[in-house]
Amino acid sequence: MASRDLAQMRKDALDIFRAGVQAVEPEAAVKQYCRREGNRLLVHQKVYDLAEFERIYVIGAGKAGAPMARAVEETLGDRITEGLINVKYGHLARLSRVKVTEAGHPVPDEAGLEGARAILDLASRAEKQDMVLCLISGGGSALLPLPAEGLSLQDKQDTTKVLLACGATIHEINAVRKHISRVKGGDLARAAYPATLISLILSDVVGDDLDVIASGTTVPDSTSFQDCMNIFDKYGIREKVPETILDHIRKGIDGKVPETPKPADPVFTRTQSVIVGSNLACVVAAEKKARSVGYHTLVLSTMIEGETREVARVHAGIAKEILKSGHPLSPPACVLSGGETTVTITGQGLGGRNQEFVLAAAMGLSAVPAQAGLKGREGIVVLSAGTDGTDGPTDAAGAVADSRTIERAQALGLNPADFLFDNDAYHFFEKLGDLVKTGPTNTNVMDLRIMLICCAQQ
Amino acid sequence: MASRDLAQMRKDALDIFRAGVQAVEPEAAVKQYCRREGNRLLVHQKVYDLAEFERIYVIGAGKAGAPMARAVEETLGDRITEGLINVKYGHLARLSRVKVTEAGHPVPDEAGLEGARAILDLASRAEKQDMVLCLISGGGSALLPLPAEGLSLQDKQDTTKVLLACGATIHEINAVRKHISRVKGGDLARAAYPATLISLILSDVVGDDLDVIASGTTVPDSTSFQDCMNIFDKYGIREKVPETILDHIRKGIDGKVPETPKPADPVFTRTQSVIVGSNLACVVAAEKKARSVGYHTLVLSTMIEGETREVARVHAGIAKEILKSGHPLSPPACVLSGGETTVTITGQGLGGRNQEFVLAAAMGLSAVPAQAGLKGREGIVVLSAGTDGTDGPTDAAGAVADSRTIERAQALGLNPADFLFDNDAYHFFEKLGDLVKTGPTNTNVMDLRIMLICCAQQ
Repeated sequence: MASRDLAQMRKDALDIFRAGVQAVEPEAAVKQYCRREGNRLLVHQKVYDLAEFERIYVIGAGKAGAPMARAVEETLGDRITEGLINVKYGHLARLSRVKVTEAGHPVPDEAGLEGARAILDLASRAEKQDMVLCLISGGGSALLPLPAEGLSLQDKQDTTKVLLACGATIHEINAVRKHISRVKGGDLARAAYPATLISLILSDVVGDDLDVIASGTTVPDSTSFQDCMNIFDKYGIREKVPETILDHIRKGIDGKVPETPKPADPVFTRTQSVIVGSNLACVVAAEKKARSVGYHTLVLSTMIEGETREVARVHAGIAKEILKSGHPLSPPACVLSGGETTVTITGQGLGGRNQEFVLAAAMGLSAVPAQAGLKGREGIVVLSAGTDGTDGPTDAAGAVADSRTIERAQALGLNPADFLFDNDAYHFFEKLGDLVKTGPTNTNVMDLRIMLICCAQQ
Repeated sequence: MASRDLAQMRKDALDIFRAGVQAVEPEAAVKQYCRREGNRLLVHQKVYDLAEFERIYVIGAGKAGAPMARAVEETLGDRITEGLINVKYGHLARLSRVKVTEAGHPVPDEAGLEGARAILDLASRAEKQDMVLCLISGGGSALLPLPAEGLSLQDKQDTTKVLLACGATIHEINAVRKHISRVKGGDLARAAYPATLISLILSDVVGDDLDVIASGTTVPDSTSFQDCMNIFDKYGIREKVPETILDHIRKGIDGKVPETPKPADPVFTRTQSVIVGSNLACVVAAEKKARSVGYHTLVLSTMIEGETREVARVHAGIAKEILKSGHPLSPPACVLSGGETTVTITGQGLGGRNQEFVLAAAMGLSAVPAQAGLKGREGIVVLSAGTDGTDGPTDAAGAVADSRTIERAQALGLNPADFLFDNDAYHFFEKLGDLVKTGPTNTNVMDLRIMLICCAQQ
């Protein structure tokens, strides 16, 4: 099957995308890592004897909270004592024991704050012979907003804005966030202690850093109040940060407010954190599907970041090399990558990073010179889409293109460079009928990019 | 050897780089593809009976012309009737039969024009029972400047400037170049016809497109005079192009100036073009070396283009994934890539694309979060250098960094982001003693990037 037609390859790409998303569907993901066999609860590599636990509480926050809770309900049934989760407005599922609070995302609101307070109370009520299951997914940080005592939501938001504007890294922003919150940086784990705390996490961040996902609600924090002040000084933003926040940080430095729990804290002798779904799981499932339909496969990386159109050029360079020399693998080939790129918006158009990726990749492929031994230029398909079914402020998850896309566009009088320049990939692919629309998938592990490369049909 | 120390890995990276460059050293490259066995001359997959040829002429242009000619002299000795090549000032080698003209590069000059005229005359003198060996290498286009009749060098240069400024592609620029030159777009091949013409080519362009290398001096041209006018109109630059050039193009459209030879032209029944050295050959030789010292290897692509710092982030993402999940290959791993990236200069510093690549990659690697299961972050080395031994306007070929570089820099009070922002990678690596200096290598097949990834030392 060295050659297959473009229509078949496009169908393959969509099938591969769907297989990837299916593997990280929240219910399936939770059930894969959290299984019950009679009185034994198997969570990844650990076994819990349910007979030893008096009460089981379910808490959590995130956009995928409801279907995750549903999986837990189906697994533990009436063993669940009580449950309380915060989800984004409208992100519901049929639940019988776990109570859902709908709250604001990406901007936190009062509903989220009320819900977070109730969740913290529930965790605090758990005792040594209890189990707390904590369900974390994308959006968990904004959906669990609980400022430290004396601070307001507005103070927190203003501080985040100042940090974003000064160019602080995500790790620096998180260090501060953790020290002005009552649930982040391991504080929720401290509340649950000495109960057994199991966190089931659907990761939506590059690298699956537990410290970053939902600002490390249930894991140790290695940063300090002093670090926060150093960060303010490093960027010279002390006078821009709200005075209440500065006061709080100063109190922390003086030991008047407790530090976040550190890695050696006894709290973490009774915790387990399991990533039940991630970009890697999605990409690996997609790879399995690609192999099953006859492609040689290569998982490039799930930690791809950077300016979208430049990342696309690198991907195009890899596809061209596969056709030219069979490096890094020979056709029929499927190259997969994940992660989340960024788009520096300079235009007025409509699009998202996935659609822009596909447009820039298609342009990179069309620059294949005919004499370069690349007779197979017609044999490339590129698909990129958000696993949550959305891409930027559009109704599409992404787009699909092939090595004839640019010619087809030009025949319709469309200049691809104009659309790229205007960040208008949506209208480009809309006119070609090449948007990928899946509707909401209820999950989110960032993006999945698929390139299929086959030899030319003879 | 899952773990080896950073010092050893740095040494490995340099050895791998040297092995790559050695494989495309001009003399070695020519001799590999052009061997003599008695009266038989073996050129790639063809065999020529030297007894059938009366005269053998050697012509050519390019920075590596002299060592390439030396290899031909050593192969054919006194069978060479006469030879004439254009090289860049100072790019000489000891030659006994082939005459060298030193000329201007990258800006063509009168010396180059004189030399080109003599080369064209020599090719024209060749007859059916003669052989012409044409040696092409990087810089061949500027070093073989011969405007069509009635046009001046200045006219040509002005036209190129207008095309570059309007955003025309390299293929569009070349289409025009070929139609205002007496040697490009296959015209040199036409001059040599009906002699047998063998072109030995050291490629310095991404994709090794024969049509692009030295503006396709000895290969068919698929563009036309009408295409040139269409390009002027597409970008609305007709009034900016010198009137003499427009006149010439119009004459061509009217059939008053001959078209460049097309693929079906009988000229090309008597030509052979062989790429004796390329980025791919360099990368593959480097790969072989890496394998021999114990690394799993992956040739990512030799067709890597794009904004350097973004390309570096993608490379860093791949290295991090190798440590995290063993995709796309498991440590100890060597990932190789080639091609030529670009740098959009916004700062005032000193550097080159290779040094900037290494700086940006090191920064990308240092963003590895400790909790992401990446215990092996200390096990990464990145080297990028120009195969010609130069990188931008510096005396370095490139730089080398490892996963401790950013910490070392910070300990010295250097802020890597400042140096990147100022395009000042040279001074960053100079202070760390991490510049790679090789001196001129006499060859040029663009850049070689090497990433070595090993597990942490326990």
